[in-house]
Amino acid sequence: MDRLLRRYRIKSRLPRECLAEFFGVYVLILFGCGSVAQVTTSQNTKGEYLSINLGFALGTTFGIYIAKGVSGAHLNPAVSVSLCVLGRFSWTRLPFYVCSQLFGAFLAAATVALQYYDAIMDFTGGHLTVSGATATAGIFSTYPADYLSLWGGVVDQIIGTAALLVCVLALGDAHNTPAPAGLEPVLVGAAVLVIGISMGSNSGYAINPARDFGPRLFSYIAGWGDEVFRAGHGWWWVPIIVTCVGALLGSLLYELLIGVHHPDSEAVDHEDPTAALQQTVEMEGAQSFDTIKENKKSGIFSITSADVG
Amino acid sequence: MDRLLRRYRIKSRLPRECLAEFFGVYVLILFGCGSVAQVTTSQNTKGEYLSINLGFALGTTFGIYIAKGVSGAHLNPAVSVSLCVLGRFSWTRLPFYVCSQLFGAFLAAATVALQYYDAIMDFTGGHLTVSGATATAGIFSTYPADYLSLWGGVVDQIIGTAALLVCVLALGDAHNTPAPAGLEPVLVGAAVLVIGISMGSNSGYAINPARDFGPRLFSYIAGWGDEVFRAGHGWWWVPIIVTCVGALLGSLLYELLIGVHHPDSEAVDHEDPTAALQQTVEMEGAQSFDTIKENKKSGIFSITSADVG
Amino acid sequence: MDRLLRRYRIKSRLPRECLAEFFGVYVLILFGCGSVAQVTTSQNTKGEYLSINLGFALGTTFGIYIAKGVSGAHLNPAVSVSLCVLGRFSWTRLPFYVCSQLFGAFLAAATVALQYYDAIMDFTGGHLTVSGATATAGIFSTYPADYLSLWGGVVDQIIGTAALLVCVLALGDAHNTPAPAGLEPVLVGAAVLVIGISMGSNSGYAINPARDFGPRLFSYIAGWGDEVFRAGHGWWWVPIIVTCVGALLGSLLYELLIGVHHPDSEAVDHEDPTAALQQTVEMEGAQSFDTIKENKKSGIFSITSADVG
Amino acid sequence: MDRLLRRYRIKSRLPRECLAEFFGVYVLILFGCGSVAQVTTSQNTKGEYLSINLGFALGTTFGIYIAKGVSGAHLNPAVSVSLCVLGRFSWTRLPFYVCSQLFGAFLAAATVALQYYDAIMDFTGGHLTVSGATATAGIFSTYPADYLSLWGGVVDQIIGTAALLVCVLALGDAHNTPAPAGLEPVLVGAAVLVIGISMGSNSGYAINPARDFGPRLFSYIAGWGDEVFRAGHGWWWVPIIVTCVGALLGSLLYELLIGVHHPDSEAVDHEDPTAALQQTVEMEGAQSFDTIKENKKSGIFSITSADVG
Repeated sequence: MDRLLRRYRIKSRLPRECLAEFFGVYVLILFGCGSVAQVTTSQNTKGEYLSINLGFALGTTFGIYIAKGVSGAHLNPAVSVSLCVLGRFSWTRLPFYVCSQLFGAFLAAATVALQYYDAIMDFTGGHLTVSGATATAGIFSTYPADYLSLWGGVVDQIIGTAALLVCVLALGDAHNTPAPAGLEPVLVGAAVLVIGISMGSNSGYAINPARDFGPRLFSYIAGWGDEVFRAGHGWWWVPIIVTCVGALLGSLLYELLIGVHHPDSEAVDHEDPTAALQQTVEMEGAQSFDTIKENKKSGIFSITSADVG
Repeated sequence: MDRLLRRYRIKSRLPRECLAEFFGVYVLILFGCGSVAQVTTSQNTKGEYLSINLGFALGTTFGIYIAKGVSGAHLNPAVSVSLCVLGRFSWTRLPFYVCSQLFGAFLAAATVALQYYDAIMDFTGGHLTVSGATATAGIFSTYPADYLSLWGGVVDQIIGTAALLVCVLALGDAHNTPAPAGLEPVLVGAAVLVIGISMGSNSGYAINPARDFGPRLFSYIAGWGDEVFRAGHGWWWVPIIVTCVGALLGSLLYELLIGVHHPDSEAVDHEDPTAALQQTVEMEGAQSFDTIKENKKSGIFSITSADVG
Repeated sequence: MDRLLRRYRIKSRLPRECLAEFFGVYVLILFGCGSVAQVTTSQNTKGEYLSINLGFALGTTFGIYIAKGVSGAHLNPAVSVSLCVLGRFSWTRLPFYVCSQLFGAFLAAATVALQYYDAIMDFTGGHLTVSGATATAGIFSTYPADYLSLWGGVVDQIIGTAALLVCVLALGDAHNTPAPAGLEPVLVGAAVLVIGISMGSNSGYAINPARDFGPRLFSYIAGWGDEVFRAGHGWWWVPIIVTCVGALLGSLLYELLIGVHHPDSEAVDHEDPTAALQQTVEMEGAQSFDTIKENKKSGIFSITSADVG
Repeated sequence: MDRLLRRYRIKSRLPRECLAEFFGVYVLILFGCGSVAQVTTSQNTKGEYLSINLGFALGTTFGIYIAKGVSGAHLNPAVSVSLCVLGRFSWTRLPFYVCSQLFGAFLAAATVALQYYDAIMDFTGGHLTVSGATATAGIFSTYPADYLSLWGGVVDQIIGTAALLVCVLALGDAHNTPAPAGLEPVLVGAAVLVIGISMGSNSGYAINPARDFGPRLFSYIAGWGDEVFRAGHGWWWVPIIVTCVGALLGSLLYELLIGVHHPDSEAVDHEDPTAALQQTVEMEGAQSFDTIKENKKSGIFSITSADVG
């Protein structure tokens, strides 16, 4: 059987990375939006707000376990973009990553709708609405609270996404206190958890364009209509544009307050004398287990730093 | 005392594996169904839906800690079957594993009924029913929500079990981001947790034939009667047949999207030059600590790959 | 300052172990009973049943972090006794351990009463009762649910304590899937958590004579009166006697189903060629860091095995 | 871009440490007070008391990940002070650390107020009050429960802060059961979680002068008025003075009951023969990765012990 599967093996690197980003985001949204669907359609009898936070957190964790060894697990266009601006990811690769992420989120939303079809029909009586007592559009994408002004929402998304990037960069900083190899996915999940616990009530902490736009597009097509774009004074674009600004801000903050001050380069060499070799290996698309170990050690920037070289 | 116990030592491998699968599933169900019993009989005063999710998650975690070093801790016939189809577990061993798993689940259900006998009698007034205000059959096995169609249930169980396998395979993939040695049980438990949080409300996420059928059989014998098989338009067979399909689908998805594309074999040798030796050792049923370490590293497939050889 | 403290240094081993057991249990009860006090006096507004489970779980975790490196962190007379019966802990040491554990629990109960004095007075209006709407004796020790028969309670405590020992032994079994060094305390805490989630509603999962009797004694002296001993048809002795039976049963179950069947001794030598040396070192009471590391690897039995030698 | 950022690089050690302490506390309060703001303004619909506990716990975790490798991550003036008294941190450095911590907490409170501006205005109708149905001052700093006497509050804060230090010292004690490298931040977060679960209802577990005074100062300036200082019979000074006493008490307790009795010095040398070298390196402000690893191993005292030398 393994031999049979081998036939479908893809050797070139970019397609493999796109598959990983696609599948990682797919699992992230499958668990994340799934938990919202469960809490919504069971009317809080089979879950609470905290379980939604856990759904997105563990969704992120397993999404990263699926993609990290192959693509570095950005799983978030805002992350990919900020890495590009920082010169740590190649602009040429960006569109491929972003499309894969969006498609994964879109398909996952469709899967959630399929799995909860009976539940949604029973809960809404067949009326798919964005607002009201039996609103279900919130299962798929985020909508701002009634009290939230547009600028309030912009600030909310900037702070939230910046907080995400600060945590992710700290966890992956080999000169600081890096997360143990193999546990980064759990700790990035914990970051998503605490953001949901402390920044979730204003506008549902999208902090990820793919997580928000992919499912929104699906809900538009699947019968919730263009209200999904008109709701919240046309909220839909905020989680797309603003999160990228927030991600960049967070990256700069971490680098300027912590990252750039490390007494490093030598230390780095110390850390892995074989780095150079490994990157070459990586260039050739043949990733040795050592490289993977190394990737794990130096976190989100590891693979991407190779891209630039 | 230790010397005394040594007398009962079993040297041959299969019986030891069966004992491990039996005991692992026993603990999984003891904690899992126990948490449902606590929430049900205390009428949500001593627990909530989230604590049921935690009960099955941590039950899985400790079930794996008990069995992993000996049998690889399938603890789930759907997992064993899909491993066989993938050619990673021997068909001849399958029936022994499945029977041990079923027996463990059955006995654990009996233990839960014993521990909660007074509570169930007090809560139900002695009327053991499958539905209604004081229904208690749900302590043991899963029943679909009223709104759920048969096909909806089939889709629900396929997606749920597929999600489980995808997470388990990712956690054990030495070429991706494998879980740290000794923490796989915790992370597989986390996968069960998030599945319960995001896919639990439709039909109670059986995602494991043994977990569902063993306790159902017990509840049938113990006084809940044949309603346990008739309920939900004869739901009982879905968690048995469909979960196997889902497990296989999940395995194929992970392999086709991630697994087969790893630039590997050399890397594997890199990873453990002694693998060959170890497998021989294993064949002879004498498992060195190194092998165990190795097993931990390459996760669920490690021991089983040896079986095929 | 460090030099000043050094003056009080104790060199002989037993007193150090007693201090560790005392302090470990003290912290366990301080957090555990403290969480009950918080939920009780705040009338569930600042916590829920799940937070009580977390309080005892994390209390256990930090109790073990405090004591493990010195005394092996039994923190539970039932554990110590079953280790003696299995010939893995010396009977001569038993009374010292048990007294330290009891005293730690007693003093911790007093501390909780001091910290929550105003809260308890405000909540009860000064009437310290064992039952009724403003009962507060449950802050300190366990009481069976009204529906629970004596035999039901005995069964409940046997199963609960057996489950605890099975999990602890699995986590410490170097031939199975041992918990990673330094994380055993967290995982034993997780075992306490899941026991509280799945076996807590019948009689409050004492599963530890010291945890139950120490605080009960305090509540008797501190003004709750002899009702603390008469309540639940004289429940008080069950968590003392029965938990020891349960602990022994659990140990035997794990050993007979898993432990004794490991194809081991050689493997052990493999694992640590220096074990012999270390034990000698240990005998002399001078514990090298290697020994401590080794202890961590082979878990609860490590230090104690040395005792027998 | 990296090269551009490098321009802003600071080489001398103290300023880098101050930046780290500032940023670490900033993130701690951003998540901690943010979770209170979410629960308060959503009136418990988007969170519960447990999620506030999680907010401060994970806030601490990520604050430590951000600062630990640079400053040792005190993040708490009470911790810094008690380290000074124990002679493990230099008095000359103390004021710089404390000011950075305070400023971080102040700025984080301002950020939370900005992010939740619309929510607070909507919830309070623009009336910023310290008490009453729509009180919001509790978002920023702690206030005692109505029933709590001043002495009760003093005892509460002493016990809480002492418990924190005991846990932190145990986690960092290389001769006991130290937390695994890279997971100390998670485990210190767990200590904060259990303190919130078991000691939170009396006065909101400040256990950190910066966490309480920084945000209180902000709320005073931002429109809550001098009531923030008058409330609770002038409670404000208790979390500042008393927590330092508690931290010192906790440190002494751990050292006198556990720490000083370790049969050590040799063991230490065993543990890292290169310690001396590393400290020299550290002195020169050039911190090699090995040093950082070592720091992680010996926890909170590692960097600071170097300071004294």
